[in-house]
Amino acid sequence: MDELAAKIKSAAYLEGDFTLRSGRKSKYYLDKYLFETQPVILRQIAKRFTQFVHDKIDCIAGAELGGVPLATAVALETGKPFIIVRNKRKDYGTGKDFEGALSAGQHVLLVEDIATTGGQVLEAAKAITSAGAIVDKIVAVIDRQEGAGRNIEQAGFEFQALFTREDLEISG
Amino acid sequence: MDELAAKIKSAAYLEGDFTLRSGRKSKYYLDKYLFETQPVILRQIAKRFTQFVHDKIDCIAGAELGGVPLATAVALETGKPFIIVRNKRKDYGTGKDFEGALSAGQHVLLVEDIATTGGQVLEAAKAITSAGAIVDKIVAVIDRQEGAGRNIEQAGFEFQALFTREDLEISG
Repeated sequence: MDELAAKIKSAAYLEGDFTLRSGRKSKYYLDKYLFETQPVILRQIAKRFTQFVHDKIDCIAGAELGGVPLATAVALETGKPFIIVRNKRKDYGTGKDFEGALSAGQHVLLVEDIATTGGQVLEAAKAITSAGAIVDKIVAVIDRQEGAGRNIEQAGFEFQALFTREDLEISG
Repeated sequence: MDELAAKIKSAAYLEGDFTLRSGRKSKYYLDKYLFETQPVILRQIAKRFTQFVHDKIDCIAGAELGGVPLATAVALETGKPFIIVRNKRKDYGTGKDFEGALSAGQHVLLVEDIATTGGQVLEAAKAITSAGAIVDKIVAVIDRQEGAGRNIEQAGFEFQALFTREDLEISG
């Protein structure tokens, strides 16, 4: 197994009976915070993400909350600024969509921790597009291979992941 | 003015009529996200915070949401892991207090963006203490000098800030 994939799995893989955000049951859970809060792992992830940060990228985006340490680390690694895409807060009325500075026409790399169906990261991508900016690509640390790639591409965005569930040798 | 203080002020200082979280009116606002999302500034802040990360510190903590980029950056700078202290979500019932790994007995450096009365960071400090860990110190980037120091020390915690409102040459 890839050395970084092994570190991520060792830090964050839990077996048991879990209910995912989507409502689906799962025999395993990857606690993204358990790998994101380890600086050695986070820095290595950020270094791998730099392959997607070409000259035209103006800023990095991460969705609240799991995307924030990733966006921070990629920003520190590349020197590009970042923005935080806020969760939709239906109960608080109209909050801000973003924190940090985003301008129309900017090219954004949207970083995501673990993509399952891609629902949350697609909401973030649409918020960026609504602000007149361009989502160059959506990149995840892990693709659970449960529809994210298809859903994201059907919505008109490019998608790549550093690792799939298979790379982590997790059976579906 | 200190070079970093000048950069922070230049990135984040806004004049106008603002209502703070506490309800108080203010003639100025410091948008913490405008300096935190700039990697050059964030890295320099993290480097200054390393003075508080002595050998006994086991982990860095930042409160959702503004403390998260700071805790991430200090963790990357020092190699210590970090935790995210969740906002109390009264409307969602009993959520998790933390993301990442925290154990009883650990010594924690709690980093904060801008301290006004210190209310939010004190809630975070009490959550850490309730988990059996020790808040070594609470350190803020900016102390608005509106009671945070006194309130935090009265609650039994140590407090320091990199800069005060006066250091940023902002009149009260």
